[in-house]
Amino acid sequence: MTDRVREILGWYRSENPGVLANLYRILNQGRLAGTGRLVILPVDQGFEHGPGRSFAPNPPAYDPLYHFQLAIDAGLNAYAAPLGFLEAGAAEYAGQIPLILKLNGHDVLQDEADPLGAQTASVEDALRLGCIGIGYTIYPGTAERRLQYEQLRELALEAKSLGLLVVVWSYARGSGLSKEGETALDVIAYAAHLAAQMGAHLIKVKLPSAHLELAEAKKVYEAQNIPRATLTERVRHVIQSTFNGRRIVIFSGGARKEDDQAVLDEARAIRDGGGFGSIIGRNSFQRSREDALRLLDEIIRIYQGEPR
Amino acid sequence: MTDRVREILGWYRSENPGVLANLYRILNQGRLAGTGRLVILPVDQGFEHGPGRSFAPNPPAYDPLYHFQLAIDAGLNAYAAPLGFLEAGAAEYAGQIPLILKLNGHDVLQDEADPLGAQTASVEDALRLGCIGIGYTIYPGTAERRLQYEQLRELALEAKSLGLLVVVWSYARGSGLSKEGETALDVIAYAAHLAAQMGAHLIKVKLPSAHLELAEAKKVYEAQNIPRATLTERVRHVIQSTFNGRRIVIFSGGARKEDDQAVLDEARAIRDGGGFGSIIGRNSFQRSREDALRLLDEIIRIYQGEPR
Amino acid sequence: MTDRVREILGWYRSENPGVLANLYRILNQGRLAGTGRLVILPVDQGFEHGPGRSFAPNPPAYDPLYHFQLAIDAGLNAYAAPLGFLEAGAAEYAGQIPLILKLNGHDVLQDEADPLGAQTASVEDALRLGCIGIGYTIYPGTAERRLQYEQLRELALEAKSLGLLVVVWSYARGSGLSKEGETALDVIAYAAHLAAQMGAHLIKVKLPSAHLELAEAKKVYEAQNIPRATLTERVRHVIQSTFNGRRIVIFSGGARKEDDQAVLDEARAIRDGGGFGSIIGRNSFQRSREDALRLLDEIIRIYQGEPR
Amino acid sequence: MTDRVREILGWYRSENPGVLANLYRILNQGRLAGTGRLVILPVDQGFEHGPGRSFAPNPPAYDPLYHFQLAIDAGLNAYAAPLGFLEAGAAEYAGQIPLILKLNGHDVLQDEADPLGAQTASVEDALRLGCIGIGYTIYPGTAERRLQYEQLRELALEAKSLGLLVVVWSYARGSGLSKEGETALDVIAYAAHLAAQMGAHLIKVKLPSAHLELAEAKKVYEAQNIPRATLTERVRHVIQSTFNGRRIVIFSGGARKEDDQAVLDEARAIRDGGGFGSIIGRNSFQRSREDALRLLDEIIRIYQGEPR
Amino acid sequence: MTDRVREILGWYRSENPGVLANLYRILNQGRLAGTGRLVILPVDQGFEHGPGRSFAPNPPAYDPLYHFQLAIDAGLNAYAAPLGFLEAGAAEYAGQIPLILKLNGHDVLQDEADPLGAQTASVEDALRLGCIGIGYTIYPGTAERRLQYEQLRELALEAKSLGLLVVVWSYARGSGLSKEGETALDVIAYAAHLAAQMGAHLIKVKLPSAHLELAEAKKVYEAQNIPRATLTERVRHVIQSTFNGRRIVIFSGGARKEDDQAVLDEARAIRDGGGFGSIIGRNSFQRSREDALRLLDEIIRIYQGEPR
Repeated sequence: MTDRVREILGWYRSENPGVLANLYRILNQGRLAGTGRLVILPVDQGFEHGPGRSFAPNPPAYDPLYHFQLAIDAGLNAYAAPLGFLEAGAAEYAGQIPLILKLNGHDVLQDEADPLGAQTASVEDALRLGCIGIGYTIYPGTAERRLQYEQLRELALEAKSLGLLVVVWSYARGSGLSKEGETALDVIAYAAHLAAQMGAHLIKVKLPSAHLELAEAKKVYEAQNIPRATLTERVRHVIQSTFNGRRIVIFSGGARKEDDQAVLDEARAIRDGGGFGSIIGRNSFQRSREDALRLLDEIIRIYQGEPR
Repeated sequence: MTDRVREILGWYRSENPGVLANLYRILNQGRLAGTGRLVILPVDQGFEHGPGRSFAPNPPAYDPLYHFQLAIDAGLNAYAAPLGFLEAGAAEYAGQIPLILKLNGHDVLQDEADPLGAQTASVEDALRLGCIGIGYTIYPGTAERRLQYEQLRELALEAKSLGLLVVVWSYARGSGLSKEGETALDVIAYAAHLAAQMGAHLIKVKLPSAHLELAEAKKVYEAQNIPRATLTERVRHVIQSTFNGRRIVIFSGGARKEDDQAVLDEARAIRDGGGFGSIIGRNSFQRSREDALRLLDEIIRIYQGEPR
Repeated sequence: MTDRVREILGWYRSENPGVLANLYRILNQGRLAGTGRLVILPVDQGFEHGPGRSFAPNPPAYDPLYHFQLAIDAGLNAYAAPLGFLEAGAAEYAGQIPLILKLNGHDVLQDEADPLGAQTASVEDALRLGCIGIGYTIYPGTAERRLQYEQLRELALEAKSLGLLVVVWSYARGSGLSKEGETALDVIAYAAHLAAQMGAHLIKVKLPSAHLELAEAKKVYEAQNIPRATLTERVRHVIQSTFNGRRIVIFSGGARKEDDQAVLDEARAIRDGGGFGSIIGRNSFQRSREDALRLLDEIIRIYQGEPR
Repeated sequence: MTDRVREILGWYRSENPGVLANLYRILNQGRLAGTGRLVILPVDQGFEHGPGRSFAPNPPAYDPLYHFQLAIDAGLNAYAAPLGFLEAGAAEYAGQIPLILKLNGHDVLQDEADPLGAQTASVEDALRLGCIGIGYTIYPGTAERRLQYEQLRELALEAKSLGLLVVVWSYARGSGLSKEGETALDVIAYAAHLAAQMGAHLIKVKLPSAHLELAEAKKVYEAQNIPRATLTERVRHVIQSTFNGRRIVIFSGGARKEDDQAVLDEARAIRDGGGFGSIIGRNSFQRSREDALRLLDEIIRIYQGEPR
Repeated sequence: MTDRVREILGWYRSENPGVLANLYRILNQGRLAGTGRLVILPVDQGFEHGPGRSFAPNPPAYDPLYHFQLAIDAGLNAYAAPLGFLEAGAAEYAGQIPLILKLNGHDVLQDEADPLGAQTASVEDALRLGCIGIGYTIYPGTAERRLQYEQLRELALEAKSLGLLVVVWSYARGSGLSKEGETALDVIAYAAHLAAQMGAHLIKVKLPSAHLELAEAKKVYEAQNIPRATLTERVRHVIQSTFNGRRIVIFSGGARKEDDQAVLDEARAIRDGGGFGSIIGRNSFQRSREDALRLLDEIIRIYQGEPR
């Protein structure tokens, strides 16, 4: 065990050894093993956006086995997906890559200002499929977020008691926020903090912009001169906002970018701002396997490096 | 065991042997035994549309025993129906034809933009009646689909742990979609994918038209030139969208057609597009028994043939 | 055991001997014993409409013992009532008349377009009170019928496993239907069919009018020339619609009629259309005991006769 | 309801109406309906003594359906048997004859001074098979009777809460008694009293001899000059000992007797001593059906008569 | 469905359709499909006698897959084994051969006069492994048989409610019996009858000798001149003793015999005495596969023939 992993585990001393063991596993997997950094492959786009929109740009990705193999070959820390995608390969790849079962999902067959989604898998499914943790998405800012928070509460309690990690996707949106506000620095920091307060072990948020959305927050940010000009500064603020760095926060890559350099620059900013890594879906599986492996290799090498 | 059945069972390796045994049974029943193709008789129209509208065109079909016998005599793979219809003949026909108990249903005594239906039977009913699986209908696109998805999740988990197959009817509809959109290619592919992600073993969808409904999806379909001019091409896309063919997708015959050739052309397109077969209700039981047996015989012979 | 009773029991072969024994009991009670016809006394009006409205026309009927004695003296097959009315006489009349415990009820202290009612007694109550079955009312056509159907599902499964009959009152109503539509032929046939599909052993519906309510059904009824001019024809259609006569369907007498002949004509139509009998509440207990016994005697003599 | 049945039901006013209804049923079945007397056919000899020893004297009795039909044709009040024998005919004869499920039994494949037996069926079995009550045998006088009494306690409580009668076979035996003592007057009276104290509704004991077994009891019997010279006197003492006649006690016919008159004399003595009837196994089914029906007819006619 | 299978299913009308469907399956499997005869392969010798003693005579039999394949290739009706042996092949052979999960077993690492064994698998295991039924061994004649009978009661009730067959191995032994008595005609008939009374659907006993063990039974057998000189006569008596042929009784092949003709003569006697077939363990798997297939082929051909 590296000192860094020991340090990280030390932040979760209230959890039972089962949770700690799974945290150890995800931190000691792949090419970033022992560094305290993570790159995770999430593939819930088929559920969230539909299969054609998700996989037509790279048709081999229609196949559920493709993603297990990609995560393994790229040396990633974990693979996260909904029930069906994990069921379709969990036996074939049993034990080869840490799995995170996404317990809820949301489709776009209705155009909803306040998406809610549905719980589509159970903690028991995560155990029978050999997962190291559960994933759950919350939408702070939506009208019915109470239903999500309360469902998360029950699932997290159950998962932890059985030794599973709790990974929360915290995406602020809904009728309470402007479109720009969804990635505002104050909002992203708030969303990450909420997930941590609800007991998440790993938190996934979007990369923050310099925009400030909430009037009361804006006053303080400006009064206190919280630096937010660079992405590195903004990542640093999010990390600080999430228990002063004592919870693992990773950042999503967002929509597919044509320009590899943009992706790599983001990774450097995450690294330099003290972020724990990336969760990269569309920028992995919407490229050819060859391109994806090349890009992931570059990202991993960035995270293997020291912050500037 | 044929190579094809062995291959199909190989896609479900995460499931327990009880589920596999029931999958084996449905794939080895009737005249399509061993081919990996299925024709299933579903008779939930009495519940869904009312008895007169369903059975008056062929009055012997009012009798619940009629359908068991039709499925057996036609050499089909299974018979699916609600609780009452199965209770009315499960003892008489015990073991002779695989049964699928439809666990939910929806009547049309209210005109609802967003139908929801109700769970009207239980997993325990399926076991006491000797069924090989449960059936459940979801309506992606409806406002309250969350309640359906979550009910399905619980029933599917229970059913699988007891060795039962999970068959999902995935019919996109509701206030989120245009009427034409209900059978749009992107929507059908999405509906099938959603069912698979929720852990369905067999998925039933409608045959897709060339229409594209969702704006974001349409952009991708057109950019990627996804072929959709012929029904065969559209079936192929749906199969690809459902775990690249690693889940069994069958197509419903829809409303009764006067023209047998239209039904047979659809079967050929399903076969040639890599579909796994048909679930034919109204085109079976709304004809005379003699006509139905003749039509089913022709359909089965199509599925016994090689794809063009 | 008469041939007719043996034939009827043969329709329920999926059920355990406990259910069959209680079916035998109700079919072998009273003056219609062995004929396969039934007349049942239901007294849930006090709950449904209030006591004054129900019992003031014949004040002895305020007394719960009155109804037990009436059912026995008239030679009926069973007495059905809510928990309190049964508790008030079940010991005194133990074993003398088959009892059906109504498990749910609806009061009219709120004026609701879509009545829902409440479960007010349990299967365990039915057993401790010595009942042969449970009764449950559904309102197809109401907005929240889902809640009723799902409650019925659970109660029916429990009741059957313990050997109790399941009797369903299926009364279409609610915002989805016109007032006239509540007794339309297509709607009554649909309501009876729904109850059978949900696993009811005995089904109670209202007598149908010649009206057709649902546009899609109307097309079929007219295209197929389903006879509906006479009440006898309409009863025959309802019986056919309920598993081709393989489930017991009885018809309610409705509101109190001044004219005895109207009641008797209805009984003749039920008999001649293949109906299994009547469930007569207000036309029994809202008359004087003497008048009620005289009318019930005439009804029973009609059912003892052969159909024309 | 006859006055006598009303009187008997009056002794059980602490029980729920379900128990009373089943008591009513057994008292109103067959040719002794309404008299307050009972003749019951018990066929647990196959379990207790083995099939050959039980049925070889009258081979049609190997068939489980034989006994249902015999009990019906003889006009008896009930048929009591272990699980298998009831399962083998409960559907065919559903409702035609009250059934009592023997919940425990003892085989003689070990020669045990202190038999214990085993519970071989459950209260739930009694309900699913449509029984009116459970039967249970206790062996007062055996070393491990505690296990029986405590098992009876649990089963009786469960049965009563669900409306089932509790019928107890109380056969004193075991290392604590001499062979002669098993039928001693003081012992039989004691055994019947114990069963009543444990909550039995119906009690079955052997016919008592004039022997007195227990030294302390003997002193009192002799001091008080309790009459015991005739069987009638002894039956009267047993009835008095069992709550002064406020519990139903019936007497077993014992081993098959060649001499019909002996059997009939016993019935007269039971009748004249205030006994409630007979439970006649071997003297029924070990004769030809014709002989059995003739003998049972004579016994029933004795019980229909007035006590001398 | 053959007339014979229909007749046999008719004996089990108290059971739910799930049980009937599994009974249908076992009766319609393999080369004896539809004849009403069965040959079953049981392999619990490894547990009962130890692996070396069981499998060293034919080392390929150490492999759990060997037995699945043997049962399939020989065209048998079912394969029965303990949990581990089924777990080791249930996925590979899912659906190809009906499986019976032996729920209890007994090892010989203690030398016990009164073996008891232990429950080593559950009804839920049977469902998840896709079995058609459970198996349970009782040892009538042993001191603690009560514990077995009561465990069987609970397991049988649960299994039946979930649609599973209950197969009972009934082997009289223990301190209550002489060694010769374990296969005495009266004891074997008694053991089969006990299993039927406890609700077994299929019963397995040893072939009976002409010896009579129990003094009271011996008197009756001799007085009634029950034929027992030939094995055919003795089988006939066992079948008669088990509900007059209304329960399926099969006979075990016993220890391995060098002489094939002895095995075949037994099969002829079983057939001619009205037995339902054989359960052949050691005489199958302790020969070479080739020899076993040849012997099983001859046995099956005997059962395919008409009784003499």
